[in-house]
Amino acid sequence: MSPDMPRDLTGLLTPSSIAVVGASATPGKIGHALFSNVAAFPGPVYGVNPSRSQILGRPCVPTVDDLPEPVALAIIAVPPADALRSLAACGRKGIRNAVVITAGFKEQGGEGIERERELVRIASQYGMNVLGPNSFGLISPRAGLNATFAPRGAFAGAIAFISQSGALGSAVLDWAWQNEVGLSFFVSLGNKAVLTETDFLPALARDRETVVIAAYLEGIEDGPEFVRIAGEVTREKPVLVLKAGATEVGARAASSHTGALAGSDRAYGAAFRRGGVLRVRSVEELLEAAVALSEQPLPRGRRLGIVSNAGGPAILAADAAAEQGLAVPPLSPPTVRSLAERFPTASTANPVDILADASADGFRDAVDLVLSDPGVDMGLVLTAPHPILTFAELARILAASHRKHGKPAVASFLAGELGEEAEKTLRAAGIPAYFEPARAVRALATLARYREIRDRPLPVRPPPAADRARVRVLLASGGPRLGVESLGLLAAYGIPIARGGLARSADEAAALAQDLGERVVLKVVAPEIVHKSDVGGVRIGVPAHEVRGAYREMVGLAPAVGVYVQELLPPGQEVIAGIVRDPTFGALVMFGLGGVFVEALGDVAFALAPLSAPEAEELVRGIRAFPLLAGARGRPPVYLAGLVAAVERISHLAAEFPEIAELDVNPILCYPDRVVAVDLRVTVSGAEGLPWGRGQP
Amino acid sequence: MSPDMPRDLTGLLTPSSIAVVGASATPGKIGHALFSNVAAFPGPVYGVNPSRSQILGRPCVPTVDDLPEPVALAIIAVPPADALRSLAACGRKGIRNAVVITAGFKEQGGEGIERERELVRIASQYGMNVLGPNSFGLISPRAGLNATFAPRGAFAGAIAFISQSGALGSAVLDWAWQNEVGLSFFVSLGNKAVLTETDFLPALARDRETVVIAAYLEGIEDGPEFVRIAGEVTREKPVLVLKAGATEVGARAASSHTGALAGSDRAYGAAFRRGGVLRVRSVEELLEAAVALSEQPLPRGRRLGIVSNAGGPAILAADAAAEQGLAVPPLSPPTVRSLAERFPTASTANPVDILADASADGFRDAVDLVLSDPGVDMGLVLTAPHPILTFAELARILAASHRKHGKPAVASFLAGELGEEAEKTLRAAGIPAYFEPARAVRALATLARYREIRDRPLPVRPPPAADRARVRVLLASGGPRLGVESLGLLAAYGIPIARGGLARSADEAAALAQDLGERVVLKVVAPEIVHKSDVGGVRIGVPAHEVRGAYREMVGLAPAVGVYVQELLPPGQEVIAGIVRDPTFGALVMFGLGGVFVEALGDVAFALAPLSAPEAEELVRGIRAFPLLAGARGRPPVYLAGLVAAVERISHLAAEFPEIAELDVNPILCYPDRVVAVDLRVTVSGAEGLPWGRGQP
Repeated sequence: MSPDMPRDLTGLLTPSSIAVVGASATPGKIGHALFSNVAAFPGPVYGVNPSRSQILGRPCVPTVDDLPEPVALAIIAVPPADALRSLAACGRKGIRNAVVITAGFKEQGGEGIERERELVRIASQYGMNVLGPNSFGLISPRAGLNATFAPRGAFAGAIAFISQSGALGSAVLDWAWQNEVGLSFFVSLGNKAVLTETDFLPALARDRETVVIAAYLEGIEDGPEFVRIAGEVTREKPVLVLKAGATEVGARAASSHTGALAGSDRAYGAAFRRGGVLRVRSVEELLEAAVALSEQPLPRGRRLGIVSNAGGPAILAADAAAEQGLAVPPLSPPTVRSLAERFPTASTANPVDILADASADGFRDAVDLVLSDPGVDMGLVLTAPHPILTFAELARILAASHRKHGKPAVASFLAGELGEEAEKTLRAAGIPAYFEPARAVRALATLARYREIRDRPLPVRPPPAADRARVRVLLASGGPRLGVESLGLLAAYGIPIARGGLARSADEAAALAQDLGERVVLKVVAPEIVHKSDVGGVRIGVPAHEVRGAYREMVGLAPAVGVYVQELLPPGQEVIAGIVRDPTFGALVMFGLGGVFVEALGDVAFALAPLSAPEAEELVRGIRAFPLLAGARGRPPVYLAGLVAAVERISHLAAEFPEIAELDVNPILCYPDRVVAVDLRVTVSGAEGLPWGRGQP
Repeated sequence: MSPDMPRDLTGLLTPSSIAVVGASATPGKIGHALFSNVAAFPGPVYGVNPSRSQILGRPCVPTVDDLPEPVALAIIAVPPADALRSLAACGRKGIRNAVVITAGFKEQGGEGIERERELVRIASQYGMNVLGPNSFGLISPRAGLNATFAPRGAFAGAIAFISQSGALGSAVLDWAWQNEVGLSFFVSLGNKAVLTETDFLPALARDRETVVIAAYLEGIEDGPEFVRIAGEVTREKPVLVLKAGATEVGARAASSHTGALAGSDRAYGAAFRRGGVLRVRSVEELLEAAVALSEQPLPRGRRLGIVSNAGGPAILAADAAAEQGLAVPPLSPPTVRSLAERFPTASTANPVDILADASADGFRDAVDLVLSDPGVDMGLVLTAPHPILTFAELARILAASHRKHGKPAVASFLAGELGEEAEKTLRAAGIPAYFEPARAVRALATLARYREIRDRPLPVRPPPAADRARVRVLLASGGPRLGVESLGLLAAYGIPIARGGLARSADEAAALAQDLGERVVLKVVAPEIVHKSDVGGVRIGVPAHEVRGAYREMVGLAPAVGVYVQELLPPGQEVIAGIVRDPTFGALVMFGLGGVFVEALGDVAFALAPLSAPEAEELVRGIRAFPLLAGARGRPPVYLAGLVAAVERISHLAAEFPEIAELDVNPILCYPDRVVAVDLRVTVSGAEGLPWGRGQP
């Protein structure tokens, strides 16, 4: 749905004038709750209601046609059929932005699907930005607009929140209100018939007050476009996504809920990594990460300094840091000396434990010393209740000293009521505070992750030199399934393949074998045989003088094109690389170790194609069994650069030839000095009807 | 420290009379805060203070000797040297229980360690139950006793809380107060010089009001005793443990904090599994699980029914259920029919979505129908804010209907302020409520885990028939390191070993080889060679007629005892089983797949020895690569019963011969119809000084 140029959503997000179709004067009705909220907008607001001339002091007109001006934004909350009529009337009137709150469209199935098609048609006809249908609405706090029926709106702030679930959106609103967390925008996407997450990303990225974009999504409409735009946006602002339907059971619930075809979770994982999106796993993590990112500077690295008045919680924090990939390094000698001078009985290792009777002043000094250490990138202050320590005082002191180091610092006040006021003081100063030490650490780890995303080098993915004409010929001349005889596909992309050739007669086979050494490998090429090895369709180590006889036996197994004669390679580490197509995100490259690792252990990694060289290396390193390639147990490491290059080239093949529906290179044999692709299976789409070539009965 | 009979802690936990050594009349002092709390005790309370005759209306005496009666419990909060003198005076006086709040003992190092030894000596001399030193104190709400200096005590309730960290304990107290969660006891263990976690488990298990025992621990003092007692207690009551120092960094902080030698995390994991302890990973999880276990019935199985007014949160809950190993199965046809009748537009799949405009009555009916389904073991009610729904009303309705099904049910009210009152209502009715759906699911999963622990069959671990005399001889006659020549150790325990024998001459080697087939394996037996294969000390597939020559070459490699001649076995799946000794928990059995799986991938599992047959099978099934043994990729499965029996027998060998410090059986070759131990390495402790036997230079 996304056009090539980003849509201009200014009139939707910060409208100058508004009409509410379905405004009601009857308390208890949705249309009343909605209009009460919108009526507080500081600019012109009109109600559209056939039987009232005024509601809540705002003028009403009977129909959209009667509006005195083409308002910037129409909000529609009338039954489905009326909603469509009103939307068309808005289009005719020249209104270019609409929020359709009305439900009963695609999510309902049946004729709802038809209605949604009609809505898209109307929006397209008039070039309208339509949010919804089945949207919970839109809140634009700085504009003074609450276009939802939520009892309360939102404070103005730095977090833009996008939700595919109205319910979850309303929950977040209530949470934000209670915790005094401000939002720059609140957008409930509804059915995403016209406007999707992808449209809002650039609009929110351009907004100066928006520091972080947080989204709850159940699916993504235009996968490639989302990845492209997210990749740009996340170099400027962090994007957090909670993706529901991560598991099979979850996905079942997802599709019955929105009718969205959920892409596989692995594809989403690959897409989020590519787009620099910070994926979170729970609502709390989404909110806490958004708050931390909106308030805190980014750390230069992953080194955490911990200051505590309590050993136990400090250990828990150190455990959490290790789990989140943060280091808790020893402090520098000058820091240790200064700490020891100021706190003679304290533990000056990191975590620094200034002991239970530490005062608020003591905390200030310790935090200052630790955050001044050049070997510390971020700080965590942990406190447990002690009669000597006033939490509120500590909070004020931390708030005052916090900005001076330019490093992120968060607090974990392990207390209930005693810590409440202190947490408010901290939050007001921009210091997130958490009961649970592990959550404080998780928030810091998210800051570090985003810093790494923001600063990652721009990927360069130049298409490799390749004989594309040959690939075209090979794909077109074969049938829907290609095998070892099409290894030339890989060779055309510069990937080393085992030497060999297709023999169509015993003589040809013998001639080929002569060039390939004393012993060769024979593989029958027969479209009807799926598992060649099981029926004797593969013979390994056949002596040259037996090739003729073997040929004759093998072509008798099934209607065969011939026999592929291949050099016999020494044993090496087997790996598999492959291509699959995800309905949402397109070509994915898979990598794994051969044999049991892929099939029994599922130890594979995925990435979106095409890949830059560093991305290909990240993919290869991403499997659990990578140590086996790197030279574990005293074995020599495999030729990693060659393997990475092969994977990179396969990813370009995937990206450039969409007719390759699936492809497995299995195995690629890896040696210390080279890698060689040995066998291949390809499924070509759009070729189903073609014969397999010669030899087909 | 634990005696064979459990200690009687009645006088400590529910004392009839109390003295406070170090009671102070000066506000702001710890001794005053402490005495103010204790003074509220309904029975006799005395202060021990040299300069006051009365504090807060309670009588004071100058010294312990002056007390008018041997009180049930003395609480000591004076400087370390005085504390020891007072403790001895208490002993002389006949006082049998003491809490030592005073710090400056082992945790301080140096002479603190000496002081702690003296404290142990005094306690032992007088047979005293001493809690601490360096304890934050003890709270016994039903007895009206708050023997801490915390500003507030605790409500009486069903959760017994034990903390090795005073700071974490004080944090939990404050949290419990704010959340109106009651405690049966609060125990701060301090340095655990005398009384440890293991002493409190049986005492708390016997307490009728205690429903769940929750502990924060940094280490365990007497590992085997803890495991034994936990195993008994957890059949009656759930025991939750948050163990700090789970990671290397965390462990570093732990040992600098308490001086406790942290056992390895894997050993703790094995011990907790054996003892039926529910291990949790964060403070919040500890508290939430404790509340859920104290309030809810246990589910019969893992089948979760979800009722929601919001699709998005329901998907998140289903995701969380899959992650936690709970099923979200389709409901039974009658339930689906009844739901469809009552809610014509709802989604009657599980999760059941009764749509955003559901009323509180609608929720009640849906929850009743779902919990009545015989295919549902537990329920989760999810709600997001909606103008039509009053959270407080829903909470009252859920509270009223909750007990009738005898199944656990929790709620996730996705709201901030709107849900606060509702959560209180639910909590008062014994229904835990959570903002985050995933946390609600986690609590339910803990209930299911405990149900499985409580109902697990009693393990039967009869020592196997074994030639123990032979093992004794083999262990005594060798040196500190034994190898393949000692495979008889395993045979003595009924574990099948490869055929073979030790040849001490070329003739013997040839004679042995004759019985072992056409080709044999030769392994040099030489104490100085650590990696035999690297120096040519292992020859595989030697033809019988070459054995003599090979013998002579191999014994020349190093001072050698001889050459072990072994049958040549066909290739099979290699596995490794081993024994290691953990300083805290003793003998651990390790199991893993051979080769790269253990060494490069670390895919191993541990369990405490000895093992019952089901425990041995659980261990074997516990590795990630288990599918490779179960017959992945069309390969035949290995002989699992034989493998399990071998592992079981090795575990008994470990348990019965503590002089085996370490043992590796590597490999055990596994076939479809048998398993065979092929090689062995043993380190014998207490044998370091012994010569290797004959052949030693």
